[in-house]
Amino acid sequence: VTREHAWLAGLGATIGVAGPEVTVGIGDDCAVLAVPGPLVWTVDAQVEGVHFTRALASLADIGFRSITTATSDVAAMGARPVAILSSLIAPSIDAAELDAIVAGQREAATLIGAPIVGGNVSRGAELSITVSVLGATPSPLRRDGAREGDGVWLLGPVGQAAAGLALLQRGIPSDATELAACVRAWRRPTPQIAGGLAVATRASAAIDVSDGLAADVAHLANASAVTVVLDADACIDAGGPALAAACAALGRDPLDLALAGGEDYALVATSRVPLGDAGFTLIGQITGGPPRVQIRRGRELIAPPRGWDHGEQ
Amino acid sequence: VTREHAWLAGLGATIGVAGPEVTVGIGDDCAVLAVPGPLVWTVDAQVEGVHFTRALASLADIGFRSITTATSDVAAMGARPVAILSSLIAPSIDAAELDAIVAGQREAATLIGAPIVGGNVSRGAELSITVSVLGATPSPLRRDGAREGDGVWLLGPVGQAAAGLALLQRGIPSDATELAACVRAWRRPTPQIAGGLAVATRASAAIDVSDGLAADVAHLANASAVTVVLDADACIDAGGPALAAACAALGRDPLDLALAGGEDYALVATSRVPLGDAGFTLIGQITGGPPRVQIRRGRELIAPPRGWDHGEQ
Repeated sequence: VTREHAWLAGLGATIGVAGPEVTVGIGDDCAVLAVPGPLVWTVDAQVEGVHFTRALASLADIGFRSITTATSDVAAMGARPVAILSSLIAPSIDAAELDAIVAGQREAATLIGAPIVGGNVSRGAELSITVSVLGATPSPLRRDGAREGDGVWLLGPVGQAAAGLALLQRGIPSDATELAACVRAWRRPTPQIAGGLAVATRASAAIDVSDGLAADVAHLANASAVTVVLDADACIDAGGPALAAACAALGRDPLDLALAGGEDYALVATSRVPLGDAGFTLIGQITGGPPRVQIRRGRELIAPPRGWDHGEQ
Repeated sequence: VTREHAWLAGLGATIGVAGPEVTVGIGDDCAVLAVPGPLVWTVDAQVEGVHFTRALASLADIGFRSITTATSDVAAMGARPVAILSSLIAPSIDAAELDAIVAGQREAATLIGAPIVGGNVSRGAELSITVSVLGATPSPLRRDGAREGDGVWLLGPVGQAAAGLALLQRGIPSDATELAACVRAWRRPTPQIAGGLAVATRASAAIDVSDGLAADVAHLANASAVTVVLDADACIDAGGPALAAACAALGRDPLDLALAGGEDYALVATSRVPLGDAGFTLIGQITGGPPRVQIRRGRELIAPPRGWDHGEQ
C-alpha cells in the first residue's frame, strides 16, 4: 500500500492532471471524467519476458510503450484519447526504477495528449503494466464495415518494429540511421491518432496492426465477411528504406516482416474514397469471396508469409 | 493471440453484452459506450500469491473477486457500475481453467449489473487479473468532503474477510454457519453499490475499505484534513456474530481484525444526517484537530490496532 501511494504520488506529481474533462484525477477511489460520448474503451498489457526485456529496452521505453500500444486501439476507432489508467504489477523495484517507468509514461501521455488520471500498484513476481485508455468520437470506426470495391489503406511503417527487435536480439549494431529507426519503432511505437481522426468519417472500417499486418487484416476480413487482397510490393514499400536496410543486415525477407512482424501499431483503413491526403498508402483491395486474406505480387497470388498463424483466419 | 481470441470468445459467448449503453462489446479494437456523464473510472489487480492462492480459493472465486473488488471503488464514489474490462495475464492455463475464471466473472458481472465489454489476454509467468470498471453518477462522492460534526457511518461486515482468510490459512474447519460466512466474505466480496447510491446525495465523503478500516479512514481523514474518532465497540459490532465466532476459533482480538483486517470492501461514509435507513451503522465522529484517526473505547482513547501500518497516516 505504501508503495502504491508512492507510485500514485509519483504519477500525480510528475504527470498531473490536465484538461477540462478531468474533474477528479489521481487520489480518490476513482477518477471522475466529464466526457461527451460516445466513448471508446480498451485495455492492454505489457509483460516482462513476453513483450519486453530490460536488456533490450529501458524502463522509460517500457513505460512509454505501455501507454502507446494501448492507445493504438483508440486510434483504430477513429477516436481522440481522453484519459489513461495505469496498473503496475512489480517485484521489488526501487524508487529510481519506478521513476523511470513514470517518466516514460509521462512522455507518452504528453505525446498522445491525454492525462493519466489514476492507477494501481500490486506486488507480483514479474513486472507487468496494464493500461486502460478511454477515448471519445462521434463516429466510432469499426472492423466490420469493409465492402467489396473498397481500397485497403495503410498508415505506418510496418515491419520496422519486428526488424528492430531482431537487430537487438541478435546484437547487431544499429547506429546507422535506418537501423536506429527500426529499433526506435520497436522501443517507442507511436499510435496513429491523427490518421484515425482524419479518416474517421470517410473510412468504412479500420483496425490497428499489433499482431502483424496479415493477421490483423484477417480479423477485419472476418468481421466484415470479405476477401482482402494485399499487394506484396506495396506492403514492403510501406516499411520504407529502414525496413530494407534492416532486412539486408538481418538476411530476412522484407515481405515476411512487413506482413507478419507485428508490434507495428500501424493503422489499416478501408475506404471507397482515397485516403492519401491523410498520409495513408494503398496496399490492397476488398473483393468478393469468403472471409480471407490473399497476397498478390503483380497478377500472381503468392504463399502467405512465414510466421503467419493461419489458424488466425 | 489464439488464446486471447478463445478467452474473448468465451467472455463474449458466456457473458455477452447487455444494456442499452453498450454500442459495441467484445470483438473490436475498443468497446463503444453511450454513457451520460459524469463518469467514474478505476482499475484494480488481483495477483496469484499476493491476493489469492489456488489452494484457498477456486478459479471461479478468483474471477468473481477480480470484478467485485474493482467495483468497490465505483460504489465508494456513489456511482452505478456501467461496464467492465478484464485483462488476464496467465501462464499455460487450460480451457477448463479459463472457463472457471470466466464463470466467476459472469456471476460477478450479473451481481453488479454491468456487462464485461472487452478484455485482453497475455502470457506471463504468474496469474493475474486486472479489471477496469466505468461507472456513472450525477454526484461523485469524494474523500475530501468530511467536516467537523459529521458522523462516520459504515456499511459492511468488517473483519470477516480477514478472519475467513486466517481460518483457511490455518486449516481450521469452517463448516459452521458463522465461520463459513467469514470464508465467503473473503472469497466472494460484495461491493456496496446500493448503499453508495442510497447516500450519494446525502454523504459528505466516502471511501471503500480495502486496506483495512483504520487505514482507509486515515486516507479519508488526510483528504478531508479532519480528525476521525472511531468507536472500538461499534467497529467490532459491525463484524457481527460471524466475526466474534471466527475470532474465538482463531484466538484473535476482534478489534484487530475489524480495524486492520482489510479486504472488507465495506463502505465508509461521513454525513451530518443519519444514514441508518440505508443500512449504515454509526461507528465514529469527525472532530476538529489534525488529520488522523483515533480509536475510542468508552471515553478513553486506546492504542491503534495491531497490524495497522502507521506510516499510512
